[in-house]
Amino acid sequence: MTSSFAKCLVAALAVLFSSQALAQYTRDPLPSWNEGPAKQAILDFVARSTKEGGPDFVPFDDRVAVFDQDGTLWVEHPMYTQVLYCLSRVPAVVKEKPELKSKEPFKTVLSGDKEAMDKLALKDWEEIVVATMSGMSVDQFQDEVKAWLKTAKHPRWDRPYTELVYQPMLEAMAYLRMGANYKTYIVTGGGQDFVRVFSPLTYGIQPEQVVGSAEGTKYGYDKSGKPFLTKEPKLLLNDNFAGKPEGIHMMIGRRPYAAFGNSTGDQQMLEYTKAGKGARLGMLVLHDDAKREYAYGPARGLPDTKVGTFTQALHDEAKKQGWIVISMKDDWRRLFPFEPLPPQD
Amino acid sequence: MTSSFAKCLVAALAVLFSSQALAQYTRDPLPSWNEGPAKQAILDFVARSTKEGGPDFVPFDDRVAVFDQDGTLWVEHPMYTQVLYCLSRVPAVVKEKPELKSKEPFKTVLSGDKEAMDKLALKDWEEIVVATMSGMSVDQFQDEVKAWLKTAKHPRWDRPYTELVYQPMLEAMAYLRMGANYKTYIVTGGGQDFVRVFSPLTYGIQPEQVVGSAEGTKYGYDKSGKPFLTKEPKLLLNDNFAGKPEGIHMMIGRRPYAAFGNSTGDQQMLEYTKAGKGARLGMLVLHDDAKREYAYGPARGLPDTKVGTFTQALHDEAKKQGWIVISMKDDWRRLFPFEPLPPQD
Repeated sequence: MTSSFAKCLVAALAVLFSSQALAQYTRDPLPSWNEGPAKQAILDFVARSTKEGGPDFVPFDDRVAVFDQDGTLWVEHPMYTQVLYCLSRVPAVVKEKPELKSKEPFKTVLSGDKEAMDKLALKDWEEIVVATMSGMSVDQFQDEVKAWLKTAKHPRWDRPYTELVYQPMLEAMAYLRMGANYKTYIVTGGGQDFVRVFSPLTYGIQPEQVVGSAEGTKYGYDKSGKPFLTKEPKLLLNDNFAGKPEGIHMMIGRRPYAAFGNSTGDQQMLEYTKAGKGARLGMLVLHDDAKREYAYGPARGLPDTKVGTFTQALHDEAKKQGWIVISMKDDWRRLFPFEPLPPQD
Repeated sequence: MTSSFAKCLVAALAVLFSSQALAQYTRDPLPSWNEGPAKQAILDFVARSTKEGGPDFVPFDDRVAVFDQDGTLWVEHPMYTQVLYCLSRVPAVVKEKPELKSKEPFKTVLSGDKEAMDKLALKDWEEIVVATMSGMSVDQFQDEVKAWLKTAKHPRWDRPYTELVYQPMLEAMAYLRMGANYKTYIVTGGGQDFVRVFSPLTYGIQPEQVVGSAEGTKYGYDKSGKPFLTKEPKLLLNDNFAGKPEGIHMMIGRRPYAAFGNSTGDQQMLEYTKAGKGARLGMLVLHDDAKREYAYGPARGLPDTKVGTFTQALHDEAKKQGWIVISMKDDWRRLFPFEPLPPQD
C-alpha cells in the first residue's frame, strides 16, 4: 500500500516535471511553424477553448482533436504506405493461394509492370488490400507489419516511412495534448489495424485512439483450445468521406473541437467538427512544396473518388467555411524530425 | 502562456489531493466488499500487475480492464433497462408510422398484455429495439434517453435506474482506474449509444470508453445545410458472446488484463482476457441474493441464446478456467451507493 503512495509521489513529480516541459511553451509551443495565420489559428484555438470562464471554454472531458494520417501526419506520395505494404504481401498470399497467380489484379502486380499497375481500378486495389490484410490472426498481422516497417524505406529519403512524419504536426498534437488536455485521435481512411501497429511510438497515440477503416474479426480457437481473432475480409467501417464522422461517432462518441486533414476524404470530418458550437478549428495541409516534399493537389490528377485529394473545389469550400489552409511551403519551417531547425529569418 | 503554468500548478495540486484520496487505500480500497477470495483476487491482481520489476508488471499504456454492464454494474432484473426504454418509445414510433399499429410485435406491446409479451421471440425483441433506436438524429436520441432516465423508476426500489448500480463494482472500477492506472471500459451487449448517455455521470466512464452493440449512422445535412448523423437500422457490432472480443479488438485494439461479467454473453470476453500472458483477472457476478436483490442464473429459466445467463455450464467453466465467482450474497457488504455501509462483523 505504501507503493500506492510512492506511485502518487512519482505522478506528482511527473506533473511538476511536465510543468517544466510546458514552461517552454512560454517561449513557443510550435517552433517548426513559421509565424502566420496557420500557426496563429492553433494558438488562438487553444487560448479560446481553454480559457476558464471564457465564452468558448471546453470542459476537459470534451476536448477531442482528430487528425487524418496520409498526407496530414506523414508523406503519402508517391503512394500510400499501406498500399506498398499490401503490394509487398502479394507474393506470400499467392504462395498460399496459387490459384490467384493467373488472376487479375494479382497477375499484374506480380509482373512488376508499373505502367499496367497504374491502370488498375479502385476495385482492383480494394481486392489487393482485402486479400493481403485478412486471413491471418491479429497477432500475426501485427508481427508482419512490424517486420516490414523495419526494412521498408522511402525511395526519395532512404528512410523508414515512420520517420517521414511532419514535425510541425507532431508539435501541434503534443501542444493540444499536453498543453491543453485534448485527446488526440488519428482518423484515417487507412487500415485501423495497420496504423495501430506504429502509432504509439510514431505519434504518441495509443491504439484505442486510432480510428480507421476496419475489417471485422472472427473469434475462434486454435488446436490447443486457446482463443484468437482472425482478420476477416469484411469491411465494417470505410473511414473516408462521410465515413469519417460516422466512424468518429462510433469510436469516440462525440463531436471533435479540432480537425486536421488534407483532402476531400476529410471534408465531411471538417464540416462535422466546425458545425459544433463555440471554438472549433478546421485545418487542411496543402502540399505545395515540390522542393522539400511534393507539390500536388489539383495537379495530382487523380479523381476524387480514387484517393481523395486537395481539389480546387475543396480550396473554395475551405475559404467559404473558414477552414485554415496550411501551406507546407510557407507555414512549415522544417518538415521532418530528422532535419535541424533552420535559423529564424 | 502564464495560464499554461497556472493550469499545471492546478494539475499538480490535483495529483497531490488525489494522493490524499489514494492514501485511504492504505486502509481499504474496497470497503463494500467482504473479506474473501473475490476481494482478495482484485487486490492480488492489482499488486501483481503494478509491481515494478515484478514478473507480471504491466506497462501503464497496456492496462485495460473491461466490465459488462447489465447484471455486472447495475440491476438487470426483471428486465434490461434498455428494453424498458425501447418499450416506452413504441407509442411514439407508432404515432409516426401508423401502419405498425396493427403489426406484430408492436400490436402486442401496445396491448399491454404482459403474458403475450413474455411470449415474444428474440426476433420480435430485435425488431422493437431496431425500430425504437433508429431513424432519429444522434442528438435527438441522446435527449430522449436523458429525459426518460430522469423520470423512469425501478418498481422495486422506486429509484432511477442509474442509482441501481453496484457500489462494490464502482469501488473496483475506481481502484483499478485511480489506484492502478487501468483504463476502465464498459463492454456491453446493450446499445453503445444508449449507455454512453449516462456512463460519465453514473460510472465516471467517458463515451469513448463504452463499447456496445452499435448501429451504423448516416451522415447528411439539414435544410440549412448543417451536417448531422442519423441513427440507422443497421447493426455494425453485435457486442455479445464472440462479439465481445471482436468489439474489444475493434474499439480498444488490445487484449484486456481484467474482465468482469455475469453471464454466458461474457464467456468469450473472459476467455480472451485470460488467454493473455501474465497476471489476468476474470470475474463473474453470481446473483444469489434474493433478499437484497434477486437470485437467478440457472433458475432464471431463459435459454442462453435469448439473453445470456449464469448457467451451470458457465459455473463449471469458471472453475476450470480459474475465473473468480463473486457471490452477491457473501462477497458484497452492501449493494447500492444509497445504502449505508453496514458495521463490520
